[in-house]
Amino acid sequence: MKRVKGIVTYDGTKYSGYQVQVDKKTIQAELEKALAKIHKADSWNVVSSGRTDTGVHSLGQTIHFDTSLSIPEERWPQAFNRLLPDDIQVRDLQYVHHDFHARFDSVGKKYVYKVNTAREKDIFKRNFVYHHPYVLSYEKMLEAAMHLEGTHDFTSFSSPRTDVIDKVRTIYAIELEKNGDEWTFTYIGNGFLYQMVRVLTGTLLHVGKGKIRPEEIPEIFEGKDRSLAGPSIPGTGLYLTNVYYDQEALEVAVKNLKHS
Amino acid sequence: MKRVKGIVTYDGTKYSGYQVQVDKKTIQAELEKALAKIHKADSWNVVSSGRTDTGVHSLGQTIHFDTSLSIPEERWPQAFNRLLPDDIQVRDLQYVHHDFHARFDSVGKKYVYKVNTAREKDIFKRNFVYHHPYVLSYEKMLEAAMHLEGTHDFTSFSSPRTDVIDKVRTIYAIELEKNGDEWTFTYIGNGFLYQMVRVLTGTLLHVGKGKIRPEEIPEIFEGKDRSLAGPSIPGTGLYLTNVYYDQEALEVAVKNLKHS
Repeated sequence: MKRVKGIVTYDGTKYSGYQVQVDKKTIQAELEKALAKIHKADSWNVVSSGRTDTGVHSLGQTIHFDTSLSIPEERWPQAFNRLLPDDIQVRDLQYVHHDFHARFDSVGKKYVYKVNTAREKDIFKRNFVYHHPYVLSYEKMLEAAMHLEGTHDFTSFSSPRTDVIDKVRTIYAIELEKNGDEWTFTYIGNGFLYQMVRVLTGTLLHVGKGKIRPEEIPEIFEGKDRSLAGPSIPGTGLYLTNVYYDQEALEVAVKNLKHS
Repeated sequence: MKRVKGIVTYDGTKYSGYQVQVDKKTIQAELEKALAKIHKADSWNVVSSGRTDTGVHSLGQTIHFDTSLSIPEERWPQAFNRLLPDDIQVRDLQYVHHDFHARFDSVGKKYVYKVNTAREKDIFKRNFVYHHPYVLSYEKMLEAAMHLEGTHDFTSFSSPRTDVIDKVRTIYAIELEKNGDEWTFTYIGNGFLYQMVRVLTGTLLHVGKGKIRPEEIPEIFEGKDRSLAGPSIPGTGLYLTNVYYDQEALEVAVKNLKHS
């Protein structure tokens, strides 16, 4: 068996998230179904860097799987993509060392959350950008973002519905960008808890509207209580854009984001 | 009864076109269902500038309907939109003279067709841009477009599946624009036949790839035979962007397009 690493992009609109669930349409199920067909097997196992939620999109989800076939690297994408639905696509498939692991070897991830504050909703972006027609303060959100960066216990900023016990994570950088009515919130961290990016962005929006003051963020961390932070906003505007497996690449990404 | 004119934008992906058909999901059926609810009636009639095909989008489809209600103009969009699905939206509703007619009073329309020639398909644009990974000649397509402009019998450039007998139409302007891998084809004319913009663009793509020579266009008109022109390409990349009811506005639009 040889191990293959690859990138998966998906429009998550029609899926109940990445991970297989009984009687639900998921990204993982589609990938495994396609690989089972390629291998003429009943089932086939795919490992990803982690799950993504209902409606969340990917530009950089990373997977690995083992194969008994000898398909040349450059022919893998076509062989795989023709068996996938038109809202899921694999690219950059390559043979890697047999001990590479898409989840355990990840050293960091980048997520982007898109918000549109125009009064009118753009129906063409309804599944790709979160519509939130409010005036936001860039300065206040930036101040709050600085409090969110660093190593913290993110209990207050993630869903309590999880088996994960250690909720300490490090956010290396948060960047806010405004382009007309469209805001982009970018996060790079060593790992993210269930719903964490949605709660972080929901909290920043509350700060931007004046519902939470930036200087309250340290108290919210301290309280370790999910009800203290802002709401978890929809998966619609969220994109997993990069998974890093190399400390140096991660550092370059953090540096670039901070200077963008 | 008072007459209301309005603009309808829609993402046509999930619909079998604009016009009502038995057992099919259509834009018109959704609009009429919503108006029936508003009026507490069993059904309600909506008239549009014309039909659009399966998968075709709208930024400027125009409709009229009569109402017995006295809703202020500025409150019509909210009242209407809350009963429409999230891929259809009305705007700019206004009371007009009782003899205004969305179809018969139209003096022209603008359509845009978007094509992406990148090697890899962008899954996020799969329903909004036609993916066609070929090298296209701008010069040849421009030369062919000049032959297509003007008043012609468009029998060769429209579907034979129609009851329309007079197939003479005038195209005032065609504009080609290239932005990286994304091409935009814009057409303004006094009216368009069934599948006409899709066949015109399909023909221009054939010209761009060298399958049809620009100087063959006059012969294709002459032949009055659908099989002579290029293929009808999918509705995916097509947008009805404007319907004109005023000769002066139409002339300004043509002038702007020609100088863009």
